[in-house]
Amino acid sequence: MSCVYDFNSKNFNIETYLQTRRQQVEEALSSALQPVYPGAERLFAAMDYSLLAGGKRLRPLLFLAALEGFNKGFADNSTADEPDLSAFLPFACGIEMLQTYSLIHDDLPAMDDDDLRRGRPSCHKAFDEATAILAGDGLLTHCFAMLLSVPADSHALVKAVRYFAEKTGIYGMVAGQCLDIQAEGQPITVEELRQIHQAKTAALLQASVVCGGLLGGADDDEAAALAEFGRQFGLAFQIVDDILDEVGDAAVLGKPVGSDAANNKTTYVSLLSLDGAKQAAAEATQAAVAALAPLGDKGRLLTALADYYLNRNF
Amino acid sequence: MSCVYDFNSKNFNIETYLQTRRQQVEEALSSALQPVYPGAERLFAAMDYSLLAGGKRLRPLLFLAALEGFNKGFADNSTADEPDLSAFLPFACGIEMLQTYSLIHDDLPAMDDDDLRRGRPSCHKAFDEATAILAGDGLLTHCFAMLLSVPADSHALVKAVRYFAEKTGIYGMVAGQCLDIQAEGQPITVEELRQIHQAKTAALLQASVVCGGLLGGADDDEAAALAEFGRQFGLAFQIVDDILDEVGDAAVLGKPVGSDAANNKTTYVSLLSLDGAKQAAAEATQAAVAALAPLGDKGRLLTALADYYLNRNF
Repeated sequence: MSCVYDFNSKNFNIETYLQTRRQQVEEALSSALQPVYPGAERLFAAMDYSLLAGGKRLRPLLFLAALEGFNKGFADNSTADEPDLSAFLPFACGIEMLQTYSLIHDDLPAMDDDDLRRGRPSCHKAFDEATAILAGDGLLTHCFAMLLSVPADSHALVKAVRYFAEKTGIYGMVAGQCLDIQAEGQPITVEELRQIHQAKTAALLQASVVCGGLLGGADDDEAAALAEFGRQFGLAFQIVDDILDEVGDAAVLGKPVGSDAANNKTTYVSLLSLDGAKQAAAEATQAAVAALAPLGDKGRLLTALADYYLNRNF
Repeated sequence: MSCVYDFNSKNFNIETYLQTRRQQVEEALSSALQPVYPGAERLFAAMDYSLLAGGKRLRPLLFLAALEGFNKGFADNSTADEPDLSAFLPFACGIEMLQTYSLIHDDLPAMDDDDLRRGRPSCHKAFDEATAILAGDGLLTHCFAMLLSVPADSHALVKAVRYFAEKTGIYGMVAGQCLDIQAEGQPITVEELRQIHQAKTAALLQASVVCGGLLGGADDDEAAALAEFGRQFGLAFQIVDDILDEVGDAAVLGKPVGSDAANNKTTYVSLLSLDGAKQAAAEATQAAVAALAPLGDKGRLLTALADYYLNRNF
C-alpha cells in the first residue's frame, strides 16, 4: 500500500488520506466474495450489488484510523514511512459487509419497505425478497469469517470480534432496529431517540473504532476511551445527518433533502429545533474529541476524522 | 456437571449419555439470552420462542462428543471421572442459535413459507415477519459472541470460529438454501440433491464436529478426519430422514410421515427407491465410521453417536 501520510506533518491532508484509504477498501471489497459458490451465482450477484454500491465506507475508515493511530500489529511489513495495512483490509471489508447486510434487511417489505437505496433499486427490488434475505444472511455470516482472517494477535482478535458481535447483535444494532420499528409513528422524547440511535447506529461505529484499537494493541483503558469516542461520534454523526437533511445541499449530499420532514420522521431537528440540534452536534463532537485526550498521539488521526465529518458550517 | 459416563466401560449407555448432555444444553440455552435489552422484549421473546422449542440438539451434541473425545481444553476443572464441560456449553448454545436462525429465516413467507415448525406456529406466525427476520439476525449475530466466549486456546478458537463462519455462510449453509430454493419444482439428479444437502445440512454438522475437535486440540489431520466424518454423517442423516418420512412411525418421530411424497419433494427415496436409499444410508454410515479410524479412542464417542442416530432397522 502506498504511503499517503505522515499525519503529524504539516503537509497531512485529511481528504487525500481518506480518499486513498477509501480506494483501498473499495478495491479489497470488489474481490472479497471470491470464489463464487457454484450454482449460487444469483446470491453472490445480490451481495456484490449491495456491497459495491458505493457509500462513504465510514466504518472501515474509522477502523483503519484507529488501527493506524496505534500503529501496531502490522509492523512486520512496514517501513518508517509506510505502514502496511493491507493485511488488515479483510477486517475493514467484514465491517462493511455487516453494515451492508443491515441495510438490505432494513429495506425489506416487512421492515422499512424501502424500494430505493443510494438512488437505485434496493436489493429485494433488484433481485427478489428471498435472495435479499439470503444476501443479508450471507454477508452477516461471512463478515465473521473476514474479521477472523487477519494476522492479529489471537487473544486480541477473539476479544475484538466478540465485542463486535455484541455491539452489532442483540445488545446493539439488532435491538436498535427493533426499537426503531416499534417507535414508528409514535411520539418519542429526545432521550428515546438517542437510545434508538445509540443502538442502531452508534454501536457499529463504536465497535469499528474499538476493534481497530484492540488489534493495534490498545489496553482496557484505551479501549474504553475509544468506545466513548465512538459513542459521541455516533451521536454527533446522527444529529449532523438530521441537520443536513433539513438544510443541506442535495447536490453535495447526493440525496434529496427534506425527506425526514416529508415523512413525519422524528429527528433531532424536529425535537430540538435547528439551533438546538446544531448545539447538540457541537457538544457531542467536542465530547468525542475530548474522549481521545488520554490517547495522545494515538488519537490524532481519529481527531482529524471527527473534525472532518462532524465540524461543519451549516 | 455430573459424571455420566466412562464411554470405554461396558456400562456406558449412549441413551443416558445423550439425555444428560441434552439436558445440560437445554439448561444453558434457557438462560443464554440474558439480560433482555430494554425495550426489545418482543425480539427476545421471539428468539426464546424458537430457541427453546425443543428438538434433538443434534449439532451441540456432536460438538460436545467431538470435544469430549479429545478430552482436552477443559482439563483445569476436570477430575478423572468427571470432565468439566460446562465452560464449553456457550459454544454448544451458539451452534444451536445458528441452527435456529436458519429455521426461522427458512420458514419466512418469501422463503419456504411454512406456517408450522415442530407442531406449533413458526416464528413469523407467532410474532410477525419483521420480528422473525430480526430474531434470526439476532440469533445469528449472537451465535458468534457465544462461540468466542469460551476459555479455549485463542489460536484454536480463531481457527474454529472462522471455519464455522465459512461452513455456515456463503460457502455452506446460506449457499445451500439458495440452491434449494432454485431447485424447487425442478427435476434434479441424485448428485444435485447431494450437493444441496451437503451445503444446506451437512456443512453445519461438519462444522460442529470439527470445532469440537479443534477446541479439544485436534491437529490438521485429525480435523480433516472429523470433517470427513461430518460430511458422511450429514449425508447418511439426510437419507435416513427421507426414509423415515416414508416408512417411519409418526408417534416415534413426533411428526407426520409421508409429507415429502405429498409435497412432491425430491428425496433420496424418490430418486433411489426405498431399497436404494437404505443401501446408500448404510454406505454413508460406514464411511462416516471409517473416517474416524485414524483417531482411535478419540473417535469412539462419535462412533457411538453415529451408530445411535444412523443405524436403524427400517
